[in-house]
Amino acid sequence: MNRIIPALAAISLAVPAPVLANTPPPLPTLEQVADQALAGDERAWDFVSGITTEVGPRQAGTEAEARGRAWAAAWLKANGFRNVAIEPFMMDTWVPGDIARARVTGPFAQDLEVLPLGNSAATPAGGIEAEVVFFRTVDDLRAAPDGSLKGKIAYVSHQMRPAQDGSHYGFAGPARWVGPGIAASKGASGIVIKSIGTDHHRNPHTGGTSFPAGVAAIPAGALSLPDAENLERMFARAQGRPVTLKLEMNPRQIGQTESGNVVGEIAGRNPVLPPVLLACHIDSWWNAPGAFDDGAGCAIIAAAAMNVAKSGAPLRTIRVLMAGAEETGLWGSKAYSAAHIGEPIAVGLESDFGADRIWRFDSNFRESNPALHKRIASAVARFGVSAGSDVATGGADLNIVRDQKGALIDLQQDGTRYFDLHHTPDDTLDKIDIVQLRQNVAVWTQVVGILAGESTSILTGGPVPSAPAIMQDR
Amino acid sequence: MNRIIPALAAISLAVPAPVLANTPPPLPTLEQVADQALAGDERAWDFVSGITTEVGPRQAGTEAEARGRAWAAAWLKANGFRNVAIEPFMMDTWVPGDIARARVTGPFAQDLEVLPLGNSAATPAGGIEAEVVFFRTVDDLRAAPDGSLKGKIAYVSHQMRPAQDGSHYGFAGPARWVGPGIAASKGASGIVIKSIGTDHHRNPHTGGTSFPAGVAAIPAGALSLPDAENLERMFARAQGRPVTLKLEMNPRQIGQTESGNVVGEIAGRNPVLPPVLLACHIDSWWNAPGAFDDGAGCAIIAAAAMNVAKSGAPLRTIRVLMAGAEETGLWGSKAYSAAHIGEPIAVGLESDFGADRIWRFDSNFRESNPALHKRIASAVARFGVSAGSDVATGGADLNIVRDQKGALIDLQQDGTRYFDLHHTPDDTLDKIDIVQLRQNVAVWTQVVGILAGESTSILTGGPVPSAPAIMQDR
Repeated sequence: MNRIIPALAAISLAVPAPVLANTPPPLPTLEQVADQALAGDERAWDFVSGITTEVGPRQAGTEAEARGRAWAAAWLKANGFRNVAIEPFMMDTWVPGDIARARVTGPFAQDLEVLPLGNSAATPAGGIEAEVVFFRTVDDLRAAPDGSLKGKIAYVSHQMRPAQDGSHYGFAGPARWVGPGIAASKGASGIVIKSIGTDHHRNPHTGGTSFPAGVAAIPAGALSLPDAENLERMFARAQGRPVTLKLEMNPRQIGQTESGNVVGEIAGRNPVLPPVLLACHIDSWWNAPGAFDDGAGCAIIAAAAMNVAKSGAPLRTIRVLMAGAEETGLWGSKAYSAAHIGEPIAVGLESDFGADRIWRFDSNFRESNPALHKRIASAVARFGVSAGSDVATGGADLNIVRDQKGALIDLQQDGTRYFDLHHTPDDTLDKIDIVQLRQNVAVWTQVVGILAGESTSILTGGPVPSAPAIMQDR
Repeated sequence: MNRIIPALAAISLAVPAPVLANTPPPLPTLEQVADQALAGDERAWDFVSGITTEVGPRQAGTEAEARGRAWAAAWLKANGFRNVAIEPFMMDTWVPGDIARARVTGPFAQDLEVLPLGNSAATPAGGIEAEVVFFRTVDDLRAAPDGSLKGKIAYVSHQMRPAQDGSHYGFAGPARWVGPGIAASKGASGIVIKSIGTDHHRNPHTGGTSFPAGVAAIPAGALSLPDAENLERMFARAQGRPVTLKLEMNPRQIGQTESGNVVGEIAGRNPVLPPVLLACHIDSWWNAPGAFDDGAGCAIIAAAAMNVAKSGAPLRTIRVLMAGAEETGLWGSKAYSAAHIGEPIAVGLESDFGADRIWRFDSNFRESNPALHKRIASAVARFGVSAGSDVATGGADLNIVRDQKGALIDLQQDGTRYFDLHHTPDDTLDKIDIVQLRQNVAVWTQVVGILAGESTSILTGGPVPSAPAIMQDR
């Protein structure tokens, strides 16, 4: 970032620079900095390798997440971002504990790899042992008669498969999102699900679940896919004998703790224009350093903002929002919206789907501002990105933009292998393919640069509405 | 096996079958049964899916290994093997305990995935915390001055890479085999090594180590490769600050316990001729169901023996030896040789390198019995198996054949992905590619069938030496 400070100063002070013998070379164009990112961006890698190595896992609401915030804020400052700040908020915090054991006790004795789901209750010390009731899908679980699971442990399978757009997450995810609540409401003493994932390693996929109001949380865990398949083979071989499981886990709710959002800016030339907001989340689950989810996302947005600035200070401010506590309930996204709802955002984009290449561009203004939509689509086509016709809905950390009914862009990443890693211990730096990461940064650079240079409304193409008082006061 | 019992009876009694209206079809040839195995063998899959599902991990000398023996013996009996027996022996038994934790405490705090190595000592309760000393290779560790590791934890890296013949195991393996002993002899209070493996999952590769006479065992663990690489990045980023690690593990030696070998036979037409011995091992490490290592090996040899019998009772007996306690020191192999050294073996073959395809055939009689070597090579060429010129040395469980200076064959399996799985929690059934498994069984069927039909000495091509009294007595 230091390289651009003279340019910023020259423009903002509007003082003609003296003509020197060593005239600095002209600034590269936006297209050139995007192409340079494709060829050799190092900033995104520096961020994601740094936070995964020097901080590691960053469970929401814990001291590890606080170290992650401090690390990210220091990185942003060191790389020339302005107005870097940590904006704290309070949240309800769940921690996983240090015991997670599952053992089939009959008819075939064998340990299974399990991890608790976020918001899971603990078992009593020493665990619970009960017959397992097999459900092929969460819909089958829904269909179980009330009370039929009393004293039993439910098991839910599914048939999730990899897909470029990750769409099987929506198909299989309910087993985790609502399965435990359904099982609890039918009297189950616990539940284990086949991990919502597509790999075959002994690393369960955790993730949040929730229980309906009035339904007490029960112990809820995810089995790794090899272990879930093994359990299903046991059912097939049990020939009617009950399959029994001993489950012991000690996660717990620890009440309110502090989390926070990290923000920083590349200052625009016109501070009255609403900023371009780039979002990611700084927290991860406790079981991995969160390289794909979402160290890479924060790395991509920060690198893209810096790259745009290499071509000169943008017209609009580019703000990065590294949200806290996304995984356990979008706490940071909600807190940011609550605190800043009165400050209009020009357009929001989020990176939270790994580090693989971007293959499609969607917006929510294809009909309301077709010229801009087409201009962006045309500019990213050289990176192999197609123009989509889906209506962008934005990522989890863009609550403020949705609350403002603002402009949104989704840069769709290739998710074919995302659910091999998502929420598992395997979400480590070595999984990042730097060639794909650079394509990702290049596309972001190109798109953010166009957006930050727009003087008219992103959503409509018309004049920007008068900035509210809070903006004029700056 | 039931299908072949009428054929066996017909041949061994030498009574001409009456000519009936429904004459049974002629027996298939050896080539036909091998081709049928390639097309659709189900027996090997039945064994390996059964033992991994119904028994699971089978740590040497434990009750789990005993369940594995009982399961295998029952399977052999159910599938028509004769003289099925469990031959017990006593062994010195090490167990892994249930605590294995590593945490970098400075300058960057983060948990690392660790598992103890076989024969590792325990740490004191609560663990040890010490500075880590980085060694690029085990040779660098060897070069450290005596006493220089006092109160330190050694870390050893390496550059193991996948290879079809698995030859990098010999290159990288010493870090595990002798690294802990070297570190202990130089005063280290513990050692962690980069797992001897080629994958990038958070699943450490365990395996045996040993300590020189007079050198007390120290806590010795393996880090998963992602964690080892993370630790190395910490060294690079520490800028001279000490990297400190807290290590806690509770493995222990529990003294002598019982293990055993499982044996069974396909009876040959001439019991005076020495048998063909097919070996594998029944034990696995505690951390996985041992699908590749070595459930598949036992599955392959058993299926091959059964397939040979489909073409009629073989001339020689085919004996399977499913050895106990291979992983922790070849206890079963040594016990079998000690008990049976006076009973000549015609030729020994072992399967203990996963379940992928066989790509090369080696023997130790290429020069002493070239006709047979060429005949076998020619017969397996249709399965894509080349004739090798290496001298076969046999697998770990063939001590008896080496002790008898007998004939050996190595059916070389593709090991490209073997060290992704070897000794890790990921050694599960889903890793087995049934198409490759069937090629493997087909090659074994072809080779074992040829050997079991040989009336002359496998090693020399000459007459078989007079069988010793113990054989004549049968």
